[in-house]
Amino acid sequence: MDASEAAFAPIHEQAAEVRSGRLSPVEIVERALDRIERHDGKLQAFTEVYAEEARFAAEAAERDIRAGRYLGPLHGFPIAVKDLVDIEGRITTGGSKAWADRVSPETATLVRRLVAAGMIVIGKTRTVEFAYGGWGTNEHMGTPWNPWDLETHRVPGGSSSGTGVAVGAGLTPAGIGTDTGGSVRIPAAFCGTVGLKVTVGRISVHGVLPLSHSLDTPGPLARSVEDAALVYEAVKGADLADPSTLSAPVDDSLATLKRGIAGMRIATMAAAERDAIEPDILDAYDASLRVLEALDARLEPVPLPYRFTEYRDMAGAIIGAEAYAKLAHLADDDAAPLDSAVRLRLRAGGMITAKEYIEALDAQRRAKAAFAEAMDGFSALVLPTLPMAAIPVADVDQSRTPADITRMANVLGLCALALPNGLTRGGLPSSLQVVGRPFDEATVLRIGWAYEQSTDWHTRRPPGL
Amino acid sequence: MDASEAAFAPIHEQAAEVRSGRLSPVEIVERALDRIERHDGKLQAFTEVYAEEARFAAEAAERDIRAGRYLGPLHGFPIAVKDLVDIEGRITTGGSKAWADRVSPETATLVRRLVAAGMIVIGKTRTVEFAYGGWGTNEHMGTPWNPWDLETHRVPGGSSSGTGVAVGAGLTPAGIGTDTGGSVRIPAAFCGTVGLKVTVGRISVHGVLPLSHSLDTPGPLARSVEDAALVYEAVKGADLADPSTLSAPVDDSLATLKRGIAGMRIATMAAAERDAIEPDILDAYDASLRVLEALDARLEPVPLPYRFTEYRDMAGAIIGAEAYAKLAHLADDDAAPLDSAVRLRLRAGGMITAKEYIEALDAQRRAKAAFAEAMDGFSALVLPTLPMAAIPVADVDQSRTPADITRMANVLGLCALALPNGLTRGGLPSSLQVVGRPFDEATVLRIGWAYEQSTDWHTRRPPGL
Repeated sequence: MDASEAAFAPIHEQAAEVRSGRLSPVEIVERALDRIERHDGKLQAFTEVYAEEARFAAEAAERDIRAGRYLGPLHGFPIAVKDLVDIEGRITTGGSKAWADRVSPETATLVRRLVAAGMIVIGKTRTVEFAYGGWGTNEHMGTPWNPWDLETHRVPGGSSSGTGVAVGAGLTPAGIGTDTGGSVRIPAAFCGTVGLKVTVGRISVHGVLPLSHSLDTPGPLARSVEDAALVYEAVKGADLADPSTLSAPVDDSLATLKRGIAGMRIATMAAAERDAIEPDILDAYDASLRVLEALDARLEPVPLPYRFTEYRDMAGAIIGAEAYAKLAHLADDDAAPLDSAVRLRLRAGGMITAKEYIEALDAQRRAKAAFAEAMDGFSALVLPTLPMAAIPVADVDQSRTPADITRMANVLGLCALALPNGLTRGGLPSSLQVVGRPFDEATVLRIGWAYEQSTDWHTRRPPGL
Repeated sequence: MDASEAAFAPIHEQAAEVRSGRLSPVEIVERALDRIERHDGKLQAFTEVYAEEARFAAEAAERDIRAGRYLGPLHGFPIAVKDLVDIEGRITTGGSKAWADRVSPETATLVRRLVAAGMIVIGKTRTVEFAYGGWGTNEHMGTPWNPWDLETHRVPGGSSSGTGVAVGAGLTPAGIGTDTGGSVRIPAAFCGTVGLKVTVGRISVHGVLPLSHSLDTPGPLARSVEDAALVYEAVKGADLADPSTLSAPVDDSLATLKRGIAGMRIATMAAAERDAIEPDILDAYDASLRVLEALDARLEPVPLPYRFTEYRDMAGAIIGAEAYAKLAHLADDDAAPLDSAVRLRLRAGGMITAKEYIEALDAQRRAKAAFAEAMDGFSALVLPTLPMAAIPVADVDQSRTPADITRMANVLGLCALALPNGLTRGGLPSSLQVVGRPFDEATVLRIGWAYEQSTDWHTRRPPGL
């Protein structure tokens, strides 16, 4: 493996070497810092790099592992954390210039757990302001550069833009994003990485700045499904500081990850939804279905009770209302230096009446019941993650969203995995989305893992990186 | 017992006679119908009396009991049902002239359960329009007459006005109301009966017209605590048609009802709240505390984290937003024949933004946590039910509410029992409110039962009836 190849290798392929002492966390962290140094001036994934602390942590990890205090397969690997997640004493801007100097009052539960698993937080990554946008753009705090096109500035996807770029460009093997309407899966898809959107209640939001309290979910981006599962297992679970986690059922996704999917009934996208999706994305999707069939899954097109755009708008109303409830003081302050698109979204949320919000929640309840019925007997539903590949930043229409398909999983309270499933003729990543039942992360990871074994899309590297 | 005395006797005192055949359901029902015939022209408790069907049901009950098919202590007794509760094929107006001809599409779960317990639905009782008001007034559908003053038309209390009057005047031994901000407890208090407000999820709302979906609770009004417990046990429990009932814990209030309250720690009202309460009501409250102390309860004043009026306003925002979400089409239709006070309340609810509603729900969560902490170590909290006795209908100010104290239990998700605890110098009922933890109906009934054993306020009858 040359240095660049190693930078793109998933954690699960290197963990045994770390455990045995053949590969030192110091080497891994230096490699990451070196790549950040060389590429992030252009890519702009990171807001802050904790170089010195990461080196200390890597040395400590090396000592611990040598001394037999091995914490598990994540031990000694770097992770990037979206700048929406608090780390005590560190700046957390939430992507907002208005919070450029905001010092985190505490450390998010999920960061504590990453550290407890031996991971090394290497820095904070850029985000759309308040995580409120799908393209990944940020007027005042910078828009990261999609690593798959070093010529044209293309969208990284958002809102976890910096995490998508950092993992997609091999600056770090894994990162943390948050997903309220697609904000983990969209950058994962545009940047060619794996991304897991968990069910609300799986991963504590304690210490994560809120956008939409009923829909926010933190989740991992990684270079393989197994890595996503490892990080998921490390951060998930009950946390007294987030009551939504207390009633989540227990699972063990690693126990079932490699069991294969023979005989599994998987729903596929019905013909009616294909119109709005670009041909290259559809081709990759159809090829993915053939891969799943070759793995003996039983596929069947299932017409969904609502259109993607209806789920999108249902989620939009809930997110809009809940975001404005938290952020009105900034949205309504003309002197606050807000991203203009984000301000417009927030102010639209301010126009939502209690009646409309209650009706959206009612519609959500009905939609959940209808979806559960439509999916009866199926283990999961596979869809494209996005209808398109990454477009130039210059072509972004802020009145539209790339989240047309992703928001469905949010409003229905489902989990979903995005993973690379092809490249367009222009050489940009396409993504497959495996949507699972509430709290059935184990099954979407299992399907994703099986798919990944049959393909090599997740191993592709952006040209020039 | 003369006929009038018998009409006011609680069910639990007569059930043994019914079981043994010494007292026939036919006689009980005829007595009720006779009293309705004689008094309801003035009192106006009922919108419809099901005289013929009640007689048939009474004869069937008599036959069943004679044949050994005894269903339990409620068998053969009449019950009045608030005209907010559907009975298939019957008119349910919800107190609205706009729904004067509305035929119930199905039978509410709670009515099915009353019938399964052998009770005889004797008629439908008046309600404030849409159950949205505490005084008991109804411009277009009639305001029942408080039975405690046959000279002056005094408020019955609302919204379950007709049920309060029917039980208070001895027209029926028990009735069903609904309580969203006090609508069971307020008419129980003004009319001198027992009333139980249950925790949301205890009694199915399936088939009950909604006012505020997150706060609505059906509950019994009765002539004794034991009767309230009997009806509560008959109608409570899991119902697939109301998901909120599916996670309620199991209880058996009858098993603990008569165990006494020696040693029980009960919180009492702190001095700061006494100002807004009328002297006669305070005297009755203080006398009640002495009764509880004589029963060896350990009383202690507990300052509440918020004022009554703050809980009131918190509940008011939630009820307003949720009511308008359901009823906007009528509130905003100038041609709809709505009660003017109800229309104003609904339209005020229409002004509530999603942000304000979300903030009210947030405040509710914080208030629940603060209350739970304040009540740590206490089994219940005793309060006056209302700050005043029934006022003349002519003196009602519709911009105020008698629910200042009652709404606390609604917004905090608690249960509460109202029971007679005195008469003012003007001869009007006063009421004690026992507020319990969520789903701890058994304890408030137990405290109420113990209190009732030491006093005779629940046996008092309105003069002239």
